[in-house]
Amino acid sequence: MCRWMAYKGQSVYLESLLFEPDHSLIHQSLSARKSEVTVNADGFGLGWYDEREEPGLYHEILPAWSDCNLKSLARHIKSPLFFAHVRASTGTSTNRSNCHPFAYKEWLFMHNGQIGEYDELKWMLDRAIPEHLYGHRRGATDSEAIFLLLLSNGLESNPEGAVEKTLTQIRNMMIEKNIEEPLRFTSVFSNGKDMWAVRYSSDEQAPSLYIKNFDNHLVIGSEPLELSGDGWELIPPSSLIKIDGLGYQRTELNVEI
Amino acid sequence: MCRWMAYKGQSVYLESLLFEPDHSLIHQSLSARKSEVTVNADGFGLGWYDEREEPGLYHEILPAWSDCNLKSLARHIKSPLFFAHVRASTGTSTNRSNCHPFAYKEWLFMHNGQIGEYDELKWMLDRAIPEHLYGHRRGATDSEAIFLLLLSNGLESNPEGAVEKTLTQIRNMMIEKNIEEPLRFTSVFSNGKDMWAVRYSSDEQAPSLYIKNFDNHLVIGSEPLELSGDGWELIPPSSLIKIDGLGYQRTELNVEI
Amino acid sequence: MCRWMAYKGQSVYLESLLFEPDHSLIHQSLSARKSEVTVNADGFGLGWYDEREEPGLYHEILPAWSDCNLKSLARHIKSPLFFAHVRASTGTSTNRSNCHPFAYKEWLFMHNGQIGEYDELKWMLDRAIPEHLYGHRRGATDSEAIFLLLLSNGLESNPEGAVEKTLTQIRNMMIEKNIEEPLRFTSVFSNGKDMWAVRYSSDEQAPSLYIKNFDNHLVIGSEPLELSGDGWELIPPSSLIKIDGLGYQRTELNVEI
Amino acid sequence: MCRWMAYKGQSVYLESLLFEPDHSLIHQSLSARKSEVTVNADGFGLGWYDEREEPGLYHEILPAWSDCNLKSLARHIKSPLFFAHVRASTGTSTNRSNCHPFAYKEWLFMHNGQIGEYDELKWMLDRAIPEHLYGHRRGATDSEAIFLLLLSNGLESNPEGAVEKTLTQIRNMMIEKNIEEPLRFTSVFSNGKDMWAVRYSSDEQAPSLYIKNFDNHLVIGSEPLELSGDGWELIPPSSLIKIDGLGYQRTELNVEI
Repeated sequence: MCRWMAYKGQSVYLESLLFEPDHSLIHQSLSARKSEVTVNADGFGLGWYDEREEPGLYHEILPAWSDCNLKSLARHIKSPLFFAHVRASTGTSTNRSNCHPFAYKEWLFMHNGQIGEYDELKWMLDRAIPEHLYGHRRGATDSEAIFLLLLSNGLESNPEGAVEKTLTQIRNMMIEKNIEEPLRFTSVFSNGKDMWAVRYSSDEQAPSLYIKNFDNHLVIGSEPLELSGDGWELIPPSSLIKIDGLGYQRTELNVEI
Repeated sequence: MCRWMAYKGQSVYLESLLFEPDHSLIHQSLSARKSEVTVNADGFGLGWYDEREEPGLYHEILPAWSDCNLKSLARHIKSPLFFAHVRASTGTSTNRSNCHPFAYKEWLFMHNGQIGEYDELKWMLDRAIPEHLYGHRRGATDSEAIFLLLLSNGLESNPEGAVEKTLTQIRNMMIEKNIEEPLRFTSVFSNGKDMWAVRYSSDEQAPSLYIKNFDNHLVIGSEPLELSGDGWELIPPSSLIKIDGLGYQRTELNVEI
Repeated sequence: MCRWMAYKGQSVYLESLLFEPDHSLIHQSLSARKSEVTVNADGFGLGWYDEREEPGLYHEILPAWSDCNLKSLARHIKSPLFFAHVRASTGTSTNRSNCHPFAYKEWLFMHNGQIGEYDELKWMLDRAIPEHLYGHRRGATDSEAIFLLLLSNGLESNPEGAVEKTLTQIRNMMIEKNIEEPLRFTSVFSNGKDMWAVRYSSDEQAPSLYIKNFDNHLVIGSEPLELSGDGWELIPPSSLIKIDGLGYQRTELNVEI
Repeated sequence: MCRWMAYKGQSVYLESLLFEPDHSLIHQSLSARKSEVTVNADGFGLGWYDEREEPGLYHEILPAWSDCNLKSLARHIKSPLFFAHVRASTGTSTNRSNCHPFAYKEWLFMHNGQIGEYDELKWMLDRAIPEHLYGHRRGATDSEAIFLLLLSNGLESNPEGAVEKTLTQIRNMMIEKNIEEPLRFTSVFSNGKDMWAVRYSSDEQAPSLYIKNFDNHLVIGSEPLELSGDGWELIPPSSLIKIDGLGYQRTELNVEI
């Protein structure tokens, strides 16, 4: 499983979230508590918003903890809304094109989970991506394909609807291919202003999703950034949440097969 | 334009071809004589045959001249049939999944050239790859797509036919998409025993292809490996050649549109 | 030879200097006009000042032109004083520890040139670095050794004196070792407020150093960033210049052997 | 702590040791059993002997488990004597110059352990390396410095004596610097014909060293390569062992302070 965190609030240096908390993403990348995979060392990525409309991106295949550039960038880049992701590959190569977050225009997307038996579905999945979006396929991951399907299903105008349509679409493809492994999908995406997150699985084991409100910001992630876990709320499965200021609204996901 | 060379003959250390000639591929990667693009520093790759049926592979995104590993591997690996490629990207990312040579079972393939306006054709091209081969698509290059189409068109049983069918198929797709830029395709492929090479372009500027017989081996490449050029024969455009021992047989390509 | 540029003036996105000029450093890295070495693809680096006292740093071993991260960082990082460097190795390895600019506390330093027969002098040179600075030696280049010697010779309090002392010190070591190749040293350094540059060689071929004043900024570099060269002033050899606002003061260097 | 293994015996494909055993080095690199550090993902290296006198070398900064090149090389390279190392940095950078094994002429050396408070000792340590060997210092690790000191103390003619002299020399430097952290040193080295290994620490916690004889080969390593541990003998601390055919002779180390 991958791990990720997203920040929204007062503009801060990235390091204050990436390195400083006692269970920060960089610490997590070295060891696991709540997740199945031990080590997240198959690439990582940052996406951040600033005065530009489209986000900044930084992808690297070194383990996050040994990348000097990351240390310096996180000390010097400030943002009011940023994403960070550490990858544990479920099969595809470790290269930058396979690193989250993925970007399209002003949108960022990142993901933890997987499409069961993705190798069996890849052909059908890629064919479902419409031509005008296909040129944005740079890597080979299921995550990037899901992002492009979300966009094709109206993410920009109706995020909630796009998520339900896309999960339904993928579930149906999996049924068509007699795939029995689950579809697990815990994700976050943003257009630089609003932020949405999803916790979903076709079985009972949706990858965890936590949220915590601080005084002037909010953090959402695959795990609490603090070992104590104090104040970190676990979002229930089958949720789509829309971050609203420093709070959130939850919608029950409706994935019809 | 990329550059490449292929060797067939008595088993030798790779360095004797990769580093030692005065216009070796590594020297070429630093400077250009006959080619349009100045520098080949967007990744490189080796493929070599030995006692195993499937070839060894080495792909790297550093410039070939600064990779210490390559220096040592080329001093220690011996092979009677090997491929080397230095890449100058025509657009896709510099990552290992985009580096030549590409492999499938016991086959190796590498390529210099490009599909004109590939971005416009990528969607249609990928959809032409049959499902059983699609899982072998690891990168995002036109070269890898061509290789998978060659396989789908019977490369393993009828190489000559597969080349003609594939070039015709791609030309037709380009016409359907109103693409006016040319299809340029100079390539080499092998199953570890036999070796074939192609020089083709839909316009008058097919990327060069040279061949030279030595006493106990044969070299084919995008340029002579010797500055003098002595004894290097330029293969005419629209050729498919089959390397036969240390000689070759030429067939005129028949690409019908 | 390496190439570099330094910017001082109104805060701008790095890309406006790194990518946009018609002879920008990234363009230069692909081809050479005034310099001896064809290709600068052996690593590159950025250093930039912002609200923090110590500079941000970014070092990479990919060719600058193929690094997606650089493209995005240069679009999103703004600075009123920054350095960029593309490396063509004169022998030491291509790894991040060998990439310019080098940093120490709030200081940045980068360099084009070389110590003749550096391999012969490395032992003596490293022994001249005092213990309190030796821990900052991370790589193996002559450039980093020169920077640490500059610091040991008082760079922080008397930059002009430190340059003369250090060049004299190295020249004397070279004499002691009977080294006949020249000491070439064209460099720039800053503490985040002031900026100095040096053009020097022990022979007649000091690596070039250009400066140009624009309306609200100044650029100094190994070459003009514009193909026209209009308004780019070539600094004469044996110069130490101190950038003063958007102008500069020149001092004749006094290297006594 | 790092981890390593060395093989001596009948020529085999490297993969049979690197990937196939149930506690192979690649498996170990992902998880820890007997060692203090969780993850070995800060670079790795191979060194192997073949018909050439000097060994082949392969160093990489990706985690070993995600390097496709390693998988292919290990399937295609055969050797009767090879070293493999996965690194967990104790402070120095993750770059290839810092990866084990280190080579000098026909010698290979690799190491698990560390010089306590190395940062305090680096200056003195480097000054102890004689000039004729100093040019072989490419990285910044304590391990490479120890190897060069071993060579300066006669490794090539009297390995046992060189180990004792070098450990004594370093211990004395540590005393001079009032360093209280231990000197831990578990290592292996070879000239391509003979192989020696050392288990030593200045305190009671010498990093483990295991050996096992198989029918036609012998393996020595920081941990057993089999989860069962059956037949793996733990070498006692303060040992220098010389591998002799498929057996070994143990000498008690005599480090006099």
